[in-house]
Order: sequence, then C-alpha cells, then structure tokens
Amino acid sequence: MKETVNVDNEKLVKEFGAGLVGTVKDLPDFYTFKSGVMYSHRDFDKFLSALKKGEKCAILSGVNASGTLHIGHKAVFDTNLFFQKKYGIPVFIPISDDESYVSGKVKDQEEGLKNSMRLAKELLAYGFDPKKTYFIIDQIYTNIYNLAIKLSTRVNYSEIKASYGYRPEDNIGLHFYPAIQSAHILFPQIEEGMKNVLVPIGPDEDAHLRISRDIASRFELVKPSVLHSLFLPGIDGGKMSTSKPNSAIFLSDSEKEIRKKINKAFSGGQKTVEEHKKLGGNPDVDVSYLYLKYLFLDEKKAKALAEKYRKGKILSGEMKKLFADEAVAFVSNFQKRLKKVSEKDLEKTIMKND
Amino acid sequence: MKETVNVDNEKLVKEFGAGLVGTVKDLPDFYTFKSGVMYSHRDFDKFLSALKKGEKCAILSGVNASGTLHIGHKAVFDTNLFFQKKYGIPVFIPISDDESYVSGKVKDQEEGLKNSMRLAKELLAYGFDPKKTYFIIDQIYTNIYNLAIKLSTRVNYSEIKASYGYRPEDNIGLHFYPAIQSAHILFPQIEEGMKNVLVPIGPDEDAHLRISRDIASRFELVKPSVLHSLFLPGIDGGKMSTSKPNSAIFLSDSEKEIRKKINKAFSGGQKTVEEHKKLGGNPDVDVSYLYLKYLFLDEKKAKALAEKYRKGKILSGEMKKLFADEAVAFVSNFQKRLKKVSEKDLEKTIMKND
Repeated sequence: MKETVNVDNEKLVKEFGAGLVGTVKDLPDFYTFKSGVMYSHRDFDKFLSALKKGEKCAILSGVNASGTLHIGHKAVFDTNLFFQKKYGIPVFIPISDDESYVSGKVKDQEEGLKNSMRLAKELLAYGFDPKKTYFIIDQIYTNIYNLAIKLSTRVNYSEIKASYGYRPEDNIGLHFYPAIQSAHILFPQIEEGMKNVLVPIGPDEDAHLRISRDIASRFELVKPSVLHSLFLPGIDGGKMSTSKPNSAIFLSDSEKEIRKKINKAFSGGQKTVEEHKKLGGNPDVDVSYLYLKYLFLDEKKAKALAEKYRKGKILSGEMKKLFADEAVAFVSNFQKRLKKVSEKDLEKTIMKND
Repeated sequence: MKETVNVDNEKLVKEFGAGLVGTVKDLPDFYTFKSGVMYSHRDFDKFLSALKKGEKCAILSGVNASGTLHIGHKAVFDTNLFFQKKYGIPVFIPISDDESYVSGKVKDQEEGLKNSMRLAKELLAYGFDPKKTYFIIDQIYTNIYNLAIKLSTRVNYSEIKASYGYRPEDNIGLHFYPAIQSAHILFPQIEEGMKNVLVPIGPDEDAHLRISRDIASRFELVKPSVLHSLFLPGIDGGKMSTSKPNSAIFLSDSEKEIRKKINKAFSGGQKTVEEHKKLGGNPDVDVSYLYLKYLFLDEKKAKALAEKYRKGKILSGEMKKLFADEAVAFVSNFQKRLKKVSEKDLEKTIMKND
C-alpha cells in the first residue's frame, strides 16, 4: 500500500495545470517545503521571485468560522508564519462567518461571529504578529460587500454553479459567496496595492482559486499565487474533519485526549509484536509516521525512522508515542501562548469598516 | 378608447390576489386615494388600522440610483410625505446603488454613489423631514449585507429566478440582490421593531414584494403592506422612462423644457380646432388630462374638465397649458427648495455602519 496523501494534489497537477512544488527553484529553507507537505502550486515561483526582489507581497489564508484549529492546519499556518517572520510581509486572514451561516455550519450569525473572534485570538496565539496581521471577519468588515459587488459583475451563475457545485435549491447567500471569497483573495491587491499575493490552501479549495484567478484576469489584475498542501489523513485513518472529534487533534485538546486519540490511531504495524518484529511495519500508511514525517521531523530523521519501522525495529506503539510527544508539546505550547494574547492586540488586528 | 393606465394593476387584482384601494374603508383624506392613482394594494387596510391605533408604523419606499426624480414619482412620494406629515411616522428610503451597478445601469460604483447622494438631497428638497427620514445607501450602509445574509438563507435560486427573471448568464451580484431588497423592506421591522410597514410601489415591483412577504412569513415576521400606484403613461404617449428624456418631466427640467415637452404630449383631441369643437376630445387618452386628473386636480374639477373636453369646450392646447402650468409650478417649487437643503441635514439622514 502506497501513501495516498497526495491523490487530490496529483489530480491538480495532471488534470488542472498545477505545478509540482518540488520542481520550483530556490525553495525556501523551511520544513513544509522540504518534507513535501506543500506539494503543488500555481505561480509560486513568480511569488518567490517577487519576494526576493523586495516587491510588495502578502499572504492570504482563510479559516472557516464553523471550525476550530487542529493539527491539520499546521502546515499552512506554519508556512504563513515563516513568510511573515522571515520577510516581514503582512498576512490577511479572512474568516467567513457569512459562509458558515449560509451553508448551515453554524446555527445563527451570532455563533458565526463568536467563532470568528475565538479563531482570531487563537491565531494570534499561534504566533502571527499583531502588527502585520489582518483579520477580515465578514460580519464586522461589511465593506467587503462593496468589493464583492464589484467582482460579482464579472462572474455569472453558470460559472459558480460549475465550480462550487451549487444547486438551484441552494439559498442565494451561498450563491453569492464566491464573490465574497474572491473579494478576500483580491483585497490585498485591489485595496492595498500588493500585487504578489500567495494563497496557501488545501487541494479541495483549488476550484475556487481558479475562479478568483479568472476574475483577477478579467479586471486586469495579477493572478494570485497558490500553494496546495497535502491532505493528511484523519488520526483515525478516515478523513480529517472538525465534526469528527477523533479524526483530528484540536489545539484545545488536553494531553490526555491527545494521547488517547493517538493510541487509537490507524497504524501500519502488524497484528502482533512478534509479527511486527519479523515482518516490519509500513510507514506509508501509518498515520503517526505520516504526521511525524510531514509536520515534525526533518527529512533525515524521518527517513531513518521509516527505515527502522520497515525493519520492525520500531513498534507501532513506539511510533505513536513519538507522534504523541510531538503533538502534546505543540498543543501545550499553543495553549500557554493563548492565555497571554492581549485583547488590545486582538482588537487592532480585526479590520473595521472605517 | 378607454384609459389604459391600470392594466398592470388590474392584473395584480385579478390574477395575483391584490385588493382594490377603492374598497378599503376609511381611506385617508388625500388626493392620491381620491384620484385613484393609488389603485391596488396588499394589506393596506391592516396598515391603516394599525396607524389609527397608534401602533409603530413606518413607510419604506426605494428609489433607483441610476435614475433621477421625475413627475412619475409624484404619487408615491406625495403619499409617503402625507403619512410622514400627518402621523409623524419615519420614512426609510433605500437607494440601491449596488443594484444599479450589477444591472449595468451605472458604469461604476462611484457613479452609483454619486447618484445616490444626489437623490438623497433631492428627496430632502422634496419635503421629507430630515429628523424622520433614513436613507439606506447600500455602498455606505454596508451592514445591510448582514441582514441580507440572514434573509438569504430562506430563499433559493429557483424562487428568485422565477420572480426576478434572472438567467444563468447573469452575474451573481444580480442574483444576490433580492436578498438585499428584502433586507431593505424588512429592515424597519427587524432592526427597529416597526411591525407595520407600508411599501408604496409601481405595479411592476409587486413580484419582488411577494418574495419579501414570503420571506417575512418564513421568519415569522409581519408581511409588509403594499400600495400599488397606477403606471401613468409617458408624456409622449409611450412608456415613461428615465432613459427617454421626452417621456417624463424631470424635477431638474427648466420651464422651457417642460412646456416644450408638454406641447408635444400625446393628446385626445381632434385633428383640427373645428373638428374638436364639433366632435369633442377624449380625456381618457389625453396625457395632459390624465396627469391633471391623477396628480393635480381634485375629483370635482377633474370631472368638470373632462366633461368640457368631451364637449369640445376645451381645446387640446388649452389642456396642455393647464398641465404645463401645474407642472412648472411643481418643479419650480422643488428647485427653489433644492437650493436650501443643508449638508448637515443631508448628512444626518444617511444611515452609517456604526
């Protein structure tokens, strides 16, 4: 059984014209590029070249107001943080509480707004610099509607129906959302004059970025660059999802919860210790190994670990413990920082109408 | 040849369940009810009854940001003013510069905003009380988006496609507009607790009001009341339209322009003076007479005038002069007041986000 983490990304490369990150020259010296968790892209090379030339650049990377931060966000947010820290560039973080509401992911607008504020606070705890980070919460920064209206004039119902998969029985709030999403994506360029914008996303968001890139062309704007991270599997071996608590490690989980989830994680080991020692394990499907490889260990350590696992020199339980130790340290660090986020910092990062 | 001013309204009564204003008890003592220019309605009786009981009432009546005020607006705005003056009730005036833009009636958002500000000023000159009048200009009061999003969750694409006649190749801004329009209409009730809202409109807007009334029910709100004015013909005998300068008398027209247009007005007179004196004219198709009857004269005077016209005792030229005198006086009064509108008054009537 081969690793299947890159199925969606490979489709983007083979059928939808995305490039392989591995073929981009002078990749940044950062783990998300070395481990391969940033797998495919559109115009990432152009973004890097503009960055190196000192041109105005920005990162744009949204988060869903219905969810809560989990370990699946790590690759994207670490990448964003890397660029902010190394190059001092601004990071715009749209939190679409309008979309969460019209898609039925939250019960009312109040819940969407509450989630948005919580997420903004958590992201500051994650490490984003309050001086260079801008949260676009749609219910607060309602002026985004004006930009969405502008962009909406160049995209028709048929196009968004095809890209977003909406149906005639879906509500019209949902049907308008692509205009808001494009407004988020093109905001740094249109409102702030930042022509080089990188949007790190999961591969499932690519169709929407293609619409935004098309809209950019129609307004003679620069197409935003896109980086696609791999889809890591859920801890339980299924699909990772905010609505399945055992599929992900949340940044709000306790050490006990984390260790419990990881103990139940899908493993590539054999049924018995004896068999494992004899036949060895399969790291390519071992969830703990995949998280260690893509999110926590450097290339050399990951490779050595895989070798030992294949040879049966490391047991599944040991692999789980390695992952659990990393996950616990990561989450516990985050939780310590969360307590220290100042309301003043939070306030100034949230975009206001005037 | 019979008067054809009420074709659209009759359709609303016969096919779409509207009532006849003439059958409502205790109609207000105001010319728009006596002349019959307010022809059909939905729940107008309920509104009147709430008004008389002293319940919280409001008028809501929009204007298109692509247009400019003309004599065709008179019946609706005079009715609104009557209620504001007699009962002191607030008047909300949405100016949909977003719709003007997404429908291509203005070239950009800047033009829409400029038109909106001009219209607000003109409406204050028209006589609306700055203390009780609220302009909802969508590009300024972008918080309307939040209410539109709420309402959008209970109306789907198929419904608005049927009511508004949008096509898949229309842009998604246009597709979302019905949510904004319903937000305008339900704003006084949802945001200000005014349960009895009257919306005076032309008969062509009824389909949209039906959608808003349906949405109101879905949120367990009171359905807004609706008054339909007659469609007066264009001065030139065709359809009145802002884009055909000779079809309407604009409130910005000079006396010379007004008299020139009315001299060319479609008339119900005979070809020669001799014939006219012998056979008499037909007031039912005489544009000047219809405007006099519906907008300027009391019932008795209008009736007498029609009689004389039928008998050939009044010539078409004389009829035109009677209309032109009224129109010139009306427009000139307006223009004098326009010069006196204070920027401070204007400022305080325009709704802001915070």
